[in-house]
Amino acid sequence: MRWNELNEEACPLARGLSVIGDRWTMLVLRDCFLGVRRFDQFQERLGITRHVLADRLRKLEAKGVLRREPYQANPPRHEYRLTEKGKALYPVLLSLIGWANHHVPTEAPPPYDLVSRETGQPIEPVLIDDRTGTRLNHRTVYARPHEDDPG
Amino acid sequence: MRWNELNEEACPLARGLSVIGDRWTMLVLRDCFLGVRRFDQFQERLGITRHVLADRLRKLEAKGVLRREPYQANPPRHEYRLTEKGKALYPVLLSLIGWANHHVPTEAPPPYDLVSRETGQPIEPVLIDDRTGTRLNHRTVYARPHEDDPG
Repeated sequence: MRWNELNEEACPLARGLSVIGDRWTMLVLRDCFLGVRRFDQFQERLGITRHVLADRLRKLEAKGVLRREPYQANPPRHEYRLTEKGKALYPVLLSLIGWANHHVPTEAPPPYDLVSRETGQPIEPVLIDDRTGTRLNHRTVYARPHEDDPG
Repeated sequence: MRWNELNEEACPLARGLSVIGDRWTMLVLRDCFLGVRRFDQFQERLGITRHVLADRLRKLEAKGVLRREPYQANPPRHEYRLTEKGKALYPVLLSLIGWANHHVPTEAPPPYDLVSRETGQPIEPVLIDDRTGTRLNHRTVYARPHEDDPG
């Protein structure tokens, strides 16, 4: 593979980052998963300017990660909810959280614990291959240059 | 939980993002996993200014994700290699790639396929709980406000 053949649209990581590759965007998504839905709540929690918050929410809506739902008619008000595409990002956040818990420790007590609904116990996220059950990491996975199917 | 009690240092997602929460940073890491080690290679592949690239590499080194290794003495030259902490980010990238492959499709052929070293087959990343084997998603996991251990 020649390195400069890696065009960014074709790379799934670059495509993923085009949706969520921004710190504020990820924190907005975190808050969505914590149940936040309204503009003023996001703003109060994140300490972000209205301009930046409106921009990130608009982009997430445009990308199909959030949708707006009216909750009041007069004056018109809406809230932001995760779409199925947005909900599917939860494992990505959990994966980063799992990494940070192991590799970026802190003395501060966590604001929340991520627990299994089934057992009530803290989760320990591990990424596996759905086909083989193998753990996925730099030892078990490699990037093979893509070859088009022969005619 | 009062929302404004969520301080950013305590939140593992925010801590994770303080290391990798930037699009260029993630693309630099992708290239590391693809085997890129030298400044000029990163720059050529990413089409990024030397200033921005040097900044991101310096931060990743300061955070312990990359380390510098000399490869030539005269003139002195070094390359960038992933530390164990850095290698541990691979599942986070794979998780985002898995999401993008499902939810941000493209007509462009992928530059590479992520395949199992064991089987040579494309991987299908799924996040599970190491303790119970349950798939982790918004239905199986919730964020419970943290309570300090009593006395």
